[in-house]
Amino acid sequence: MSALVPCIVAGGAGTRLWPVSREAMPKPFMRLADGRSLLQKTFERVAGLDDVAQLLTVINRELLFRTLDDYRALNQKRLELDFLLEPMGRNTAPAIAAAALHVVRHYGEDAQLLVLPADHLIRDQAAFIAAIGRARALADAGWLVTFGIQPDHAETGYGYIQQGEELEGGYRVASFVEKPDLATAEAYLAGGKHLWNAGMFCFRADVLLRELREHAPQVVEGVEKCLALSAPAQGKQGVQCELDGGSFAEVPDISIDYALMERSAKVAVVPCNLGWSDIGSWQALRELTPADANGNQINGEVILHNVQGCYIDSPKRLVGAVGVRDLVVVDTPDALLIADAQCTQDVKFVAQELKRRDHDAYRLHRTVTRPWGTYTVLEEGPRFKIKRIMVRPGESLSLQMHHHRSEHWIVVSGTARVVNGERDFLLNTNESTFIPAGHHHRLVNPGVIDLVMIEVQSGEYLGEDDIVRFNDIYGRAPVSEATN
Amino acid sequence: MSALVPCIVAGGAGTRLWPVSREAMPKPFMRLADGRSLLQKTFERVAGLDDVAQLLTVINRELLFRTLDDYRALNQKRLELDFLLEPMGRNTAPAIAAAALHVVRHYGEDAQLLVLPADHLIRDQAAFIAAIGRARALADAGWLVTFGIQPDHAETGYGYIQQGEELEGGYRVASFVEKPDLATAEAYLAGGKHLWNAGMFCFRADVLLRELREHAPQVVEGVEKCLALSAPAQGKQGVQCELDGGSFAEVPDISIDYALMERSAKVAVVPCNLGWSDIGSWQALRELTPADANGNQINGEVILHNVQGCYIDSPKRLVGAVGVRDLVVVDTPDALLIADAQCTQDVKFVAQELKRRDHDAYRLHRTVTRPWGTYTVLEEGPRFKIKRIMVRPGESLSLQMHHHRSEHWIVVSGTARVVNGERDFLLNTNESTFIPAGHHHRLVNPGVIDLVMIEVQSGEYLGEDDIVRFNDIYGRAPVSEATN
Repeated sequence: MSALVPCIVAGGAGTRLWPVSREAMPKPFMRLADGRSLLQKTFERVAGLDDVAQLLTVINRELLFRTLDDYRALNQKRLELDFLLEPMGRNTAPAIAAAALHVVRHYGEDAQLLVLPADHLIRDQAAFIAAIGRARALADAGWLVTFGIQPDHAETGYGYIQQGEELEGGYRVASFVEKPDLATAEAYLAGGKHLWNAGMFCFRADVLLRELREHAPQVVEGVEKCLALSAPAQGKQGVQCELDGGSFAEVPDISIDYALMERSAKVAVVPCNLGWSDIGSWQALRELTPADANGNQINGEVILHNVQGCYIDSPKRLVGAVGVRDLVVVDTPDALLIADAQCTQDVKFVAQELKRRDHDAYRLHRTVTRPWGTYTVLEEGPRFKIKRIMVRPGESLSLQMHHHRSEHWIVVSGTARVVNGERDFLLNTNESTFIPAGHHHRLVNPGVIDLVMIEVQSGEYLGEDDIVRFNDIYGRAPVSEATN
Repeated sequence: MSALVPCIVAGGAGTRLWPVSREAMPKPFMRLADGRSLLQKTFERVAGLDDVAQLLTVINRELLFRTLDDYRALNQKRLELDFLLEPMGRNTAPAIAAAALHVVRHYGEDAQLLVLPADHLIRDQAAFIAAIGRARALADAGWLVTFGIQPDHAETGYGYIQQGEELEGGYRVASFVEKPDLATAEAYLAGGKHLWNAGMFCFRADVLLRELREHAPQVVEGVEKCLALSAPAQGKQGVQCELDGGSFAEVPDISIDYALMERSAKVAVVPCNLGWSDIGSWQALRELTPADANGNQINGEVILHNVQGCYIDSPKRLVGAVGVRDLVVVDTPDALLIADAQCTQDVKFVAQELKRRDHDAYRLHRTVTRPWGTYTVLEEGPRFKIKRIMVRPGESLSLQMHHHRSEHWIVVSGTARVVNGERDFLLNTNESTFIPAGHHHRLVNPGVIDLVMIEVQSGEYLGEDDIVRFNDIYGRAPVSEATN
């Protein structure tokens, strides 16, 4: 059989999981109780397949370094890691078309693509492997294969796939159905012919492109044009291709279901029972963990008095709860969510309102991830700002200069190599340096443990855009909105 | 008529108003929507009386500086400010006995005491003044006068006073009644003879002491013994008397109601309608402010979706609320309360559990008040701690030394005078200094605006008890548990 190229497609803001999921750290990066992110779990699922030598990831370009962080610890099999970096989200059809074109170019026309969302949970790996085996056989025979999850309740929040004529290892798809009402969902459950659409696919790259050319030619043509304008670069671990922004913005914004699956006659479904969840809401997430005798699920320091059926996730702050029932409480350093357990789908309305207001809490967490590590604003006041900066071993901030602010740096853990004006020196734990406004400076972690530093900024203007970059090992633009 | 000495008695932890009310910053210091604390409102009520030249305050000794902070801005009439400083709470009978003995000694046997709780709200000052006029006349005639609030609903959370025989300006008290059940409270409301016990009193000091000697002699004797061992000091604005700890601990822990009022035949009540509230819970507090069209009362940045009847107080963090009803949400930098609006009396159980666990969040806020200003722990980690320190103009930290930690100080606002080992120098905004472990050091604000400083501590041990004090302008012990 031809090569299998798993393709993780990470799109969507995961607004129903605000305040943990935010634009700059969306749902795939959410960590579950075991400390692994959904993206890492997807990676492990892929790494657990035989005969897989590469992984293609389609993700927003701002999330590349964060994604590599998540993959790094898990890539013992040294999968080749290819990336298609989206300048913006254009839904799944353009992402999958780009993935298919990439695979045809690098791995051959007959290579098979296994498309996996980055933010779903699959608990039964053996069933997953078995389902893929059946899907590959069907894909080899020219089918566009979807995976249909056996329903265990009358869910109104998913789309359904209706089984048609039986095939070897699956079924022809009779129809796709949008999210049904409850009566319809109950009839589907009773009838046994309808499966949940899990958004996972398996097909030969050439078949996908041929069908897509027939049913949604603008998508393929738009993506081809975009790829012609994009410059792939051979990175340390694989090809990184940043998609050209102007042309990608012109590709139709459309889902693969709507563009192709609902139109093509070549679509099959493999029914399966994978322990699957799309973790579409806080309520769905809480269902993954057992509750105590009062129906509560608690993470963090909590004092409860007469509390039942509550999910409280507060890793850093004390919560006192009194006389409440069936709430979902999610605490983060800068924002708190309190929702009725029956209404957690509506959390998206809070996130949408924040987006409308252009509020930082839609986009960023208080701890912001950069290619070199993280920074956290501890406090801001008139003419000063205090940050905690963590630089990973071997990493380096750009050589830079600020016009309007000076900075005090104090090393609290690890060792820093500092360029400060004309001087270049080591700064050990509990040592400090002062960087006047206008001085060129650079911060490097030459050690083997994380460097943690407190930066106290002082000046008349402390905006992140007061930065002049001279040199950046991550290839970032000479002047950027980003910090450091 | 004889002199009137108002006496503010501030006791009790206000545990039902956790997390804002805590042991080191209890309910009297809570600020209402107008920015004034309950203590300040009580002070203003006193300052609004004619013919008052002094104010006696009975309060825990740890709260002296905090109380002076609250009084300072309001004392335009230059009331003489006497303090009896309790080493621990022993309920109201010992506090009032000490107040009466203090008044007899300093203002004469016939002086009248007006005892006011520090944490109640009275919105009708004119009615308050009128009620005091009637009370003073009765007190002059030898009555122990209580104030009985006309009930406007069948409240089960208060004690009641039953009116007896009519007197000039009030009534003899027929009986005191403990918190009734709802049916009894409804009967009281209908009958029109029962009033709420507001915990306010007016009496001649000598009468109080004579009655107390008859009905609770151990209280008077214990307090007399304690005062004999206590050394009053003439402060800038009045007498400050720190009560002797060992002897005060032996005084019976008993309320004035139970020790005297329920036993004496000389008790009268002045019925009144003062716009009174004891603000006994978050629910009582929220009733002071109008709600919006959805019944919500909001302080802070909040995004609501389908929310009704909620009180949300979150001055510093964003709150998203979805589909919730009738909740009280109170957010502070280190602790969050979520309570059903019908259960806010039970908030005390959370505070009690924190006390049992010896949890910091029972006692302290993240911002801690010291005689010289405040400090806030911004972050703690292995071998480092970051504090924001605010020193008020003219104030000074003690000359001190730490064995195990060094400190970086960076001035972000104002000017500091620093003693660092042998050196004594000014540190201006955006300048820093390093204080090695073992160095004597002192921090003074010589300027006229607040000094704000960031302190980064580093060392193997960062406990607040690693402090050796050499000199302290606030008379604190050479070695103390307190910071700086």
